Order: sequence, then C-alpha cells, then structure tokens
Amino acid sequence: MARVVVDVMLKPEILDPQGQAVQRALPRLGFEGIADVRQGKRFELEVEGPVDDAALARIHEMAETFLANTVIEDFTVRVDEAARAES
Amino acid sequence: MARVVVDVMLKPEILDPQGQAVQRALPRLGFEGIADVRQGKRFELEVEGPVDDAALARIHEMAETFLANTVIEDFTVRVDEAARAES
Repeated sequence: MARVVVDVMLKPEILDPQGQAVQRALPRLGFEGIADVRQGKRFELEVEGPVDDAALARIHEMAETFLANTVIEDFTVRVDEAARAES
Repeated sequence: MARVVVDVMLKPEILDPQGQAVQRALPRLGFEGIADVRQGKRFELEVEGPVDDAALARIHEMAETFLANTVIEDFTVRVDEAARAES
C-alpha cells in the first residue's frame, strides 16, 4: 500500500487568519524570528494498488474537485517515498 | 528567508473522524481504491535568518509545545528546500 500526500494551502494572496493568529502568539510564548505563518491541511491517502501516472491523475482530480477549494486554495500531490520504503 | 514546514497528524491509534468522512465520501464521488484517509495540519513558517541546528531545535520545541498536542498528535519538522531554492 502506497501513501500519497495532498497538501492544501490557502493561495498566497488570500488572508490566513489562522496562520496570523499563530504568528502573533509566538513572540508572547518566547519564540522570535518567525516572519510569517501559513496554516493549511495535509491529507494522507493510502492507495490500493500501484501508484502509477493514472492513479496520480485520479488523485489530482480528486484533490481539485473535493479536497481543495481551488478558488482560494492551492494543492500539491506527491508520493510519500518514506512510507513506501517502510512498507 | 527560509521556509520550515511542520506537519501535524493525529497519532495512528487516534480515531480521525475528519479523515474517515473524506474516505467514505470518495466512492460516492466516483473515486475508488483509497483504503484510508488521515487529515492533519500543515504549518509553513517563514524563518528570519539562517536555519541552522539551533533554529530547527527551537522550531521543534515550538511545535511540541504549541503547534501540536503531543498527547494525540505526532509532528515532523523539515526545511522546505524547494522554497529555499526559489528565494
């Protein structure tokens, strides 16, 4: 079983209040030197069968139509080679 | 400016109802062959100054005390080399 990771992040031009809240809290907690924080979502998909180009194309379509809101979010799809090596 | 990515995922033994909801919705939407879905958080931190071992140790501490709830969540810290190469 292979693992495919889909990362979904707000587009750079979209305001990210969650990330801002984290960034503003950091100095109060003693952590300096972080200029910006963006918070997004990470999906780990366990894929049955081979992760070939066709499977990745389907996962790309799934991410585009379902996991991400492409009006405000960007996403990346990649195979988690570390998880593949373990299995 | 270097980017450090902190991925926060629920521990494998913790139930993930968000991920389950996604996984159960997929066949209805025409996507077969996904055995499991886990949903987590991804933080992108823009770090001022060099990302040396000391900086990574501080970010690790930040993730442990603030970004992740280590009772139920695991996290990983890594430098985003792609973002570094772009800048």
